[in-house]
Formats: sequence, structure tokens, C-alpha cells
Amino acid sequence: MIDYKDLVVGADTLVPIANGRHVKYVNFDNAATTPPFKSMIDDLTNFLPYYSSIHRGMGYKSQVSTEAYEEGRKVVADFVGADLNKDAVIFVKNTSEAINKLANMLYEKYSDCVIISTEMEHHSNYLPWGKFNVEYVKVDKYGKLSIEDLEDKLQMFGDRVKLVTVTGASNVTGFKNPIHHIAKLVHGYGAKLLVDGAQLVPHVAIDMKSHDSLEHIDYLAFSAHKMYAPFGIGVLIGPIEELNSIPPDYKGGGTVDVVTHEFVKWNDTPEKDEAGSPNVLGVVALSSAIKTLQELGMDNIENYESNLLNYALYYLRNTPQVILYCIDCNCNVSLIPFNVEGMYHETLSKILSKEFGIGVRSGCFCAQPYIQRLLNVSLKDSINIAKKGGRRPGMVRLSFALYNTYHEIDYFIYALRKIINYKEWYLEKYQVSI
Amino acid sequence: MIDYKDLVVGADTLVPIANGRHVKYVNFDNAATTPPFKSMIDDLTNFLPYYSSIHRGMGYKSQVSTEAYEEGRKVVADFVGADLNKDAVIFVKNTSEAINKLANMLYEKYSDCVIISTEMEHHSNYLPWGKFNVEYVKVDKYGKLSIEDLEDKLQMFGDRVKLVTVTGASNVTGFKNPIHHIAKLVHGYGAKLLVDGAQLVPHVAIDMKSHDSLEHIDYLAFSAHKMYAPFGIGVLIGPIEELNSIPPDYKGGGTVDVVTHEFVKWNDTPEKDEAGSPNVLGVVALSSAIKTLQELGMDNIENYESNLLNYALYYLRNTPQVILYCIDCNCNVSLIPFNVEGMYHETLSKILSKEFGIGVRSGCFCAQPYIQRLLNVSLKDSINIAKKGGRRPGMVRLSFALYNTYHEIDYFIYALRKIINYKEWYLEKYQVSI
Repeated sequence: MIDYKDLVVGADTLVPIANGRHVKYVNFDNAATTPPFKSMIDDLTNFLPYYSSIHRGMGYKSQVSTEAYEEGRKVVADFVGADLNKDAVIFVKNTSEAINKLANMLYEKYSDCVIISTEMEHHSNYLPWGKFNVEYVKVDKYGKLSIEDLEDKLQMFGDRVKLVTVTGASNVTGFKNPIHHIAKLVHGYGAKLLVDGAQLVPHVAIDMKSHDSLEHIDYLAFSAHKMYAPFGIGVLIGPIEELNSIPPDYKGGGTVDVVTHEFVKWNDTPEKDEAGSPNVLGVVALSSAIKTLQELGMDNIENYESNLLNYALYYLRNTPQVILYCIDCNCNVSLIPFNVEGMYHETLSKILSKEFGIGVRSGCFCAQPYIQRLLNVSLKDSINIAKKGGRRPGMVRLSFALYNTYHEIDYFIYALRKIINYKEWYLEKYQVSI
Repeated sequence: MIDYKDLVVGADTLVPIANGRHVKYVNFDNAATTPPFKSMIDDLTNFLPYYSSIHRGMGYKSQVSTEAYEEGRKVVADFVGADLNKDAVIFVKNTSEAINKLANMLYEKYSDCVIISTEMEHHSNYLPWGKFNVEYVKVDKYGKLSIEDLEDKLQMFGDRVKLVTVTGASNVTGFKNPIHHIAKLVHGYGAKLLVDGAQLVPHVAIDMKSHDSLEHIDYLAFSAHKMYAPFGIGVLIGPIEELNSIPPDYKGGGTVDVVTHEFVKWNDTPEKDEAGSPNVLGVVALSSAIKTLQELGMDNIENYESNLLNYALYYLRNTPQVILYCIDCNCNVSLIPFNVEGMYHETLSKILSKEFGIGVRSGCFCAQPYIQRLLNVSLKDSINIAKKGGRRPGMVRLSFALYNTYHEIDYFIYALRKIINYKEWYLEKYQVSI
């Protein structure tokens, strides 16, 4: 049996803690970024002697590098069920770039249309749509998306809606949205669907499905650094036909076929939409990581991470003073937002780090409107707190990946309960009052 | 004495050639991308066990990673003489992104102003300005920038000019522009100067100079993959004050301080201008490469590369049928565009690769308007050739970097002369007529 822990770099890194000792670092911030796969580093190292300029270079290394880069599109397409005859796999630097790029391009074509987004989005699938007429699908008080509200909005705005954009899984609560069901609804109104897959693609098997299927995902965006290949690569997948009908967002080297002072003929996508020298090594890294994920089996990964999630939740539910914000764990990816009564989220995460060598994230996770909703913070309060530089509403987030272990969760629960039991002492040590 | 060849990965890579043998690959396409420094790979490998999410992560690794990332801004600033009290070092993915981002941001503020660009720009410093009123400074028939024409245009458009953008060194001819002299002129008219440093920063010492100096470079853009750190990182440097006065181009995670459905408060630059998860490892790689370049000494590098250039030029000038397009080598970075009489540029570069294992680039080098000017191709012809899918005007380009050797140039000259001497045979073998 594979020990997942052996797959990544740095799973055994020792870090200093407050008592002067060193402990094995526990990383529960995988929703932000994952460590690299060792196999990916090996593949990269083997490739490096052949690394060179791509596309327009004529040398042998350029041919090898071009082939590796273009092969990356096939690897990605295969991984998520895209159809390279109809879909372009565009390499970007991260999910935020993917979504901004798409938003800007669609704005060229549909500036007066309606975009439907949701209240549970990461800022990167929220702010880029700001220049459109945007409608936000509501979430309930637990943070789950209201499919009824989506239907109402689709009905209300009809064919003015050109795109619905939803997260595949929330980076705050881990809730997975029923993307294929949503696709069906959206296509029923003639609109297209973008899935922000940043938190979904690394954790569960994805199939964009055939273009003929009503359940087809039209656009998909995700990032390599959340799937064990952290070298500045992200992906935007979308229909070639639509993408070719719009000029590129960023323009420059590689995007153009012919240009004079008075005439421009753009290349076809994906080249058109990849201005500048492509990040070849980032793509080699992503391709390698995907192959490893496929060998491990996405279903096995989902299953294991789900077990970790349930294991941690069991102990958290049985820890007094812990406030949990996710209620339905059958449709979550492996992350848990929580707070401890009477302890500021940032203070708790700091103590976990300094005293126990446990890395978590705290705050709003770049999803302020969603957090405001979950914590029931008013608009006015949010603005006032920010303006006064006060303590901001937020949570602590645990996010697991395949290399995390039950043992690490045991250690975390031990640490958390110790902090809760000696709360006053810790708060005094870190010179903060509740 | 350091053997520069030992510094990079893959300098000894063997590649197959047409006769079935393997030869050491000669890479003369460094203007497109350079191989990685070995020391950079070592630094990256040492860093990997500490790699984690940055900025908002609370764990020890996140702190280490954040420190490394932020330290990268200092390393870059120190390398090019930027002042971090007044300048933001923004990490992007490549020079094209840097320039597109700046163009889009300035367009928010100065949409009806005049931008002065030049006829010698790479597409990435040409196409992004297309939505402004752009004036192009002329080049002479050898491809050198006309400073007189720049002055005329500055005088003609006066305070309507907000930005002048010039390449530091041409990626076609290698001509270096007198950027500090240009800065003086530009500042005399109250405009700012952007230098596209992609081809300059890897080859000569750059000093942006004090903000108080008339010779100050306001904006500088360049790419790490052209300076031995190819992991998807580029740099845009510019004045904090101006950048903070404009909303971010791409929006998303990290760009925003507070956001509700009705209110957005942006962060300050550089965070505001780096949407999404930053490429930490790309920055670690760039920092390492810069330190190596500094240890070697940019003046030593410039001197050595200049010797390579002159050595190659001497033999090219003494090779019949070679047409050279650069005339003044005292102000060039180390690249040489040329053609061979009666041989299509692409065919020549293919034969160099297949028969001799020499990698060069051929074509228009993403600088079609400049190439059209140098080759004296009319606008009409350019468009017609493109529309008919005919043979496009272009050149073969040699571009050297610090690890190239005189011996490699000897080998290249031997190969080139052999191709010229047996031109008919090679053309027949590659089934092309002149």
C-alpha cells in the first residue's frame, strides 16, 4: 500500500516551536496550496536538460519542449474530460487569471448581458464580474447554494443571461455544488456555465462531459499549485468556437498571426490567449502531478480525504467551545471552518503555529461576502470594522490533502483542547484579550 | 576562473542529428529563453521542504515562504536600482503580462491621452497599447531609433503624452536604446517612461536611478525565464503613488482589503496588483538567479557576451552570401539577425538543427512591424503574404548568453559555411527550392 505521506516534499520538515524544541510541521492549509509531489520534482529534473524556448524555436530542445508543453493540454483535457476538438486548454498562471481573462473577453462580446454568480464565491470569482450586470444566487444560513434562487434568476433574466459562474466547491465551507445539475438548468436557458474548480479539481474526479450533454461544463478554471505542482500554472478550459470569436484579453508575443501598423490578424485559441513566453516547466510539472493523481485514483483520494474530514469532525464536535460552520459533510471537500468561543480566529491560528507547529489559515479566505453571510455580519458592520482597522470577522480553516494523516489530526485535537483548557494562559502569553 | 558553461543545466545535453549520431546541443536562442542556473535549482531544492501558502497563512512554513517572497522584491529592487520606498515591485508571469497590466491600468486613468511607442518594439510592447492614441517613433533603415523623431513627437503632443514606452534592447537587432537620455527628454515634457527590459536586464547592469534624477526610469518590465530562472515569473516595477491611484487590472484573491456586495476597498500595490496565489517558487528562483548574476558581475557578463558577439560577427562578415542586419555593434546586446542569400530563413534554421544540433530562431521574432521596416516589405505585401499563407519575410537570429563559448561559434560557422557550400544538396534534401 502506498503511504501518501511519502509522495510529497516536506512532509517531515521539522520546525521550531515556542518551547525551543522542533516538531514535525503539520500543514492543514492545503486549500491555499499543497506541497509538491516528489515524483513531479523528479520529472522536472529529468526534463530540465531539454528545457528550451517553445513554438517558434527550431532547435531539437525547442521541439522537445514544445511537444511537452502541447502534450500538457492533452493530459489536462484527459483529466477533466475536455474534448480538444471543441475545447481549448489555455494555460494561465492561476485560477484568478483564468477568470479575469474570461470575464474581460466575454465583456467584449456581452457587455450588457447578465452574469449570474453566487454569494459563496471566492473574490476571484466575484470581483472580475463587477463590470457586468451581476446577479448573486443566495445561500442559506448554513452557506448552501439555493438552487431555487438560481432558477428564479434564470427565469427572471431569461436570454439576457450569457454565463452562470459557480464554484465547484467552496474554499470556506467545502460545500460542493451540484455542477451537472446546475449545468442542465443553465443550458435550459441558453446560457453557459463556468465552474471555478480551484477547490474541486484537486480532490474529486471531474468530467466536463460531452458538448452534446445538457450536463456539460462549458468553462472550467483551476490551479496547479493546489494540486502538488506549484510552479505558477493555472488552467482555463472553454469552447474553441466562442473563444475564437473574441479578441485576446492580454496581447503580445504569440497572440498574433499578422500585424502591421494598420492590420491585425489574431491567432486561434489557445495561442491567442497565451500572450508572452509560456511557462513550459509549470506545464511539465502540472502534467506530472496529474499523472500521479490518476495513478493514485481520484476516487481513492476523495475517499481518503473524506475519511480524514469525518475523523476530524467527530473530534471537533466532541470538543466543547468549538463552533463549526459546516453541517452536511456528505457533500463537502475536505475542509473545515470553525471558531473557538472567546478566541479571535487569528490568535488561535497563531497559537497553533507557535506552540504546536500546526499551520492553518484564519480570516475571511478571500470570500468576504460569504463569510459576512455565514457569521451574520451586517454590511454596515463590515465596512465600519474595516474602516476602523478593528478585528475582522472570520474563522479558522483546516484543509486536508491526501498526504495528511489521522495521527496529525489526533495531534491537532490534542493541541486544540490544550489551548481551550488553558485559554487564559495562552491569551495572556500572546498578550491578547478575547 | 569560473567556467560559465558549468553554471547552467543542460549545457552538455546530447541531441540526435540527421546522420544518426548525437552531438552536444548548441543553444543560440537565448533571447527567447535561457536554461536554468544549477545554483538556482539547488536553492529551489533546499527551499522546497519549506514551501507553503503565503501572506495569510499562519504556519511556520507560511511565514518562511512569505519572507522569501517578500525578500524577492528587495533582491529585484537592489538588482535594478529601484527604490522600494517609492517603487512597487509587482510579480507577474512574464513581460507581456507586465505591459498589458500597465496598459490596462493606465487606460483607466488616461484613456484619451497619447502614448508614444516605437517602430522597433516586440509585439508585447506594441499590441497592448492599441486602444490608446499611439504614436510610433521612427527607426532608420538600419533599425536604429530616431531620437529626433521622438523629440518631434514629444513637442507635437506636449502634455497629452502621459507615457513613452521603448524597448531597452531590440529582440531583433540587439540595438540598445539610450534609455537614460530618453528619460531626460520624456521627463522634460512631464511624461513617464516605461522600459521593456526583457532583452536588456539579463545582459547589462541596469540602474533605474533616483526619482529625483531626470534620467530616472519610471517603469521597468522584464522576465525571469530570460535570466536563468524559468518558472513563470516576470516583473513590473513602477511608482507606488501612481499605481495606488488606479484600481487593479485583474481582480481577485489578495487584491482587496474589504469587499461587500456594495463596497470595495482595494489593497495597496503590490498586493493589489497580484491577483490570486503568488508564484512563490518562481520568485525564489528569480532571487537566486539574480544573486548568481550579481556574483558573476553584470559588467563581466556584458563584456564576455560582447566578445562572443564580435567574434561571431567577424566570421559572419567573412562568410560570403551572409546578409547581416545590424551595423553598429558597440551598442548591441549579444544577438545577430542575418539571412543567407537564396535560402529561406526557416529552411536554414531547420538545417542547422537537423544536421548540426544547433538551435536558433527564425521568422519575425514577434516584431513584425520592425521586420517589415528592416526588410523593406510593404504593408500590402505583408498582408497579402499572410492571407495567401506564403513564405513570410524574416531572418535567422543568433542570441548568445553567458554560457555560450567561442568553440560553439566556431562550430556554428563551420556548419553555416558547409550549408552555404552545399546549398543545393541541402535544399534538395529538405525538399525546398529557394
